Amino acid sequence: MPKFSAIRGMRDFLPNEAETMKYVEQVARELAHLYCYEEVITPVVESYDLLAAKSGEEIRKRMYAFDDLGGRRVALRPEFTASIARLIATKMMNEPKPIRLYCCGSLYRYDEPQYLRYREFWQSNYELIGSSKPEADAEILILTNDLMKRLELRNYWFKVGHVGIIRGILSQEGVAEEQQNQIMQLLDSKRWDEALTVAQESGISQIATTTLKKILETRGKDVSKVLKEAKSVVSDYDGAVAAVENLRSILNLVKESGATLEILIEAGFARGLEYYTGMVFQPYVPELEREVGGGGRYDKLIELFGGESTPAVGVAHGIDRLVLATKRQKVLTTIGRERVMVIPIGEEMRAKAMELSWMLRNVNIPVEVEVVGRTVSKALQDADRRNVTHTIIVGPEELREGKVVLRDMKKREQKTIEIITLVDFLKRR
Amino acid sequence: MPKFSAIRGMRDFLPNEAETMKYVEQVARELAHLYCYEEVITPVVESYDLLAAKSGEEIRKRMYAFDDLGGRRVALRPEFTASIARLIATKMMNEPKPIRLYCCGSLYRYDEPQYLRYREFWQSNYELIGSSKPEADAEILILTNDLMKRLELRNYWFKVGHVGIIRGILSQEGVAEEQQNQIMQLLDSKRWDEALTVAQESGISQIATTTLKKILETRGKDVSKVLKEAKSVVSDYDGAVAAVENLRSILNLVKESGATLEILIEAGFARGLEYYTGMVFQPYVPELEREVGGGGRYDKLIELFGGESTPAVGVAHGIDRLVLATKRQKVLTTIGRERVMVIPIGEEMRAKAMELSWMLRNVNIPVEVEVVGRTVSKALQDADRRNVTHTIIVGPEELREGKVVLRDMKKREQKTIEIITLVDFLKRR
Repeated sequence: MPKFSAIRGMRDFLPNEAETMKYVEQVARELAHLYCYEEVITPVVESYDLLAAKSGEEIRKRMYAFDDLGGRRVALRPEFTASIARLIATKMMNEPKPIRLYCCGSLYRYDEPQYLRYREFWQSNYELIGSSKPEADAEILILTNDLMKRLELRNYWFKVGHVGIIRGILSQEGVAEEQQNQIMQLLDSKRWDEALTVAQESGISQIATTTLKKILETRGKDVSKVLKEAKSVVSDYDGAVAAVENLRSILNLVKESGATLEILIEAGFARGLEYYTGMVFQPYVPELEREVGGGGRYDKLIELFGGESTPAVGVAHGIDRLVLATKRQKVLTTIGRERVMVIPIGEEMRAKAMELSWMLRNVNIPVEVEVVGRTVSKALQDADRRNVTHTIIVGPEELREGKVVLRDMKKREQKTIEIITLVDFLKRR
Repeated sequence: MPKFSAIRGMRDFLPNEAETMKYVEQVARELAHLYCYEEVITPVVESYDLLAAKSGEEIRKRMYAFDDLGGRRVALRPEFTASIARLIATKMMNEPKPIRLYCCGSLYRYDEPQYLRYREFWQSNYELIGSSKPEADAEILILTNDLMKRLELRNYWFKVGHVGIIRGILSQEGVAEEQQNQIMQLLDSKRWDEALTVAQESGISQIATTTLKKILETRGKDVSKVLKEAKSVVSDYDGAVAAVENLRSILNLVKESGATLEILIEAGFARGLEYYTGMVFQPYVPELEREVGGGGRYDKLIELFGGESTPAVGVAHGIDRLVLATKRQKVLTTIGRERVMVIPIGEEMRAKAMELSWMLRNVNIPVEVEVVGRTVSKALQDADRRNVTHTIIVGPEELREGKVVLRDMKKREQKTIEIITLVDFLKRR
């Protein structure tokens, strides 16, 4: 039993896993660059009140909250959007709109650790701020599709909805925002009956109850059919009709732009976060039981945080879940890498081995140098164990002629080679 | 007054600053690759006891510690080495040595925020595990020098010492480890008189007191002269002599390998962390009043955490301090970037504009698309404000001929151009 271990719900990523994490992060960062989203960095620790405002009951309950040594109520961020909205409201209000921001990092929730749910997890996050137009929503969907494609994932689909459909019905029925939030939370947890009970207790009409029941059943992959059906179900509720029309515009734009997304519309789809005001979505891959990301429109949050009224739409992708998805689909195969090790013959050659290593790194060849003081034969055994492809043996005799011994570890062949040729040889590979 | 702000001691990095942070991180990661350090990821939250063990009184006092919702005493990591030592001791004990590990991320301390001291900061961290040889220490010094060089920093220097010099004297005088740690902490804070008082109260001889006083004065940039002097000062203390000899071997290797480091030796130099057992160092730039990194040898830590006895040496570089250093020295000038914006003429062209944008991104051209529904003239004004270099105007007439309008925003010229030529044109830039 080791003296110490990582604490419950927290993970270590060893080199192989960490490499894939960093690869996904890099693809996400390149995507941000190609879509002109500028990166920002916000703190892991934020005020509890900021993170709790409009995050929704589910997130509030699971927040990694504590009192800091100065007695402040703080929490480790459970998501990025609140921090970005704060940043916009307090420091970027005068920037020309739209503003496209990207961020990436670790997030926290204090939850019972379980499959695909950890207390520390990672997301790449894109926010498009300052446009209420459907093309902004469409961009966020297309960008997410592009990320999945660039990671070479297959058979993924998007669950798409619009919180304005349910909220449109409830608002027209006079249901207060607090009850609406409660209903949306219950819907997010698939607790439909409880959601309907809360709605009925809020005094909605019989027609509204019927409409809600019907709209919750309105789902399917044939976008135009489902939207037509949804519109007819909610035809008595202007706000809900407008929401369906907004969703139609967004998805039409996505389709006409040539992006081929597999979409599952759920008219009653709700996400746990209270701040959403429009289109919401989650991408899925068949191999994972949970979504690999999520996003939507939030037009009131920046205002709430002290900024001007500013529409916004965004998405977060779960980096560790995407890593798992690429593993399950076996799409990212590690590239067999050249590994070069420089071995000095005896103590006197140590500095020369380091000098040669430095020279090779200077022309961008990755090199490890023997630093344990092993004999050449022991060092070669070690090189075999760690799958080194080429060793360079630095000895005094060869060195006097500007040469070293280059050994191909797979072919078990070696030759004496001029150092200048060595660089050429390794660069060409 | 905004409703919410970042909490005390925490920072936001807006796009310009974040870009430099990410650039330094990228250079650090490339360096890790070139030196064959494999990246790992460890949690931000660790057990308090792990982080407190051997971190030293100064760090313990300033740890961002709290009780989590499950009543565990935890802390946000103040440094990486404890986590890496835990990882090695618990999960990598069977890996062939040496193991080279890299990690990079945010760290925390609960301290009075002040110039160059924040409650959240970032480091790139390199650990070389499994070699007690001076070439391992030399590699860590050379690698740090290489990072500073690759960031194009100038006039930097390394303060270098060896904790074995002072500890060698104290051990031979029978001073217990606890008092030794206290003395090292005081020396780290430059409280020499207090350190000497503690040593005297621990019952050291008059000769030892004189030796300590002399060795604290032994410093300078002429490496061989200072080491010779140090050796003569501590000649009665075998452990201290061995430490001086070890430091000489390390610095000889660095010099002979061709690396040109400016070194300031301080024989009495101590770092705050208790786990150091050998060479210690900190790099400085003249423009910053504090070190931009720090490292050293820690041969007992992995054993303490439940692993086998395993020598190790490592270094951490302060990313946000390096960013500040590059700013002060004005060495990283932002490259004037091409910015391309695609503008649809009217609603009907929106999907086409998105399709074209997607096509351009697919050949790696970064493109932002107009998503606010502006008219072309308003969109061009906006493009000017955000320093867009080229706009592409998508209209129905040109499109029917497979063409768009390309406008050079600086020259204020525009021409109708075939889409295929457009890709060529933008790719060539």
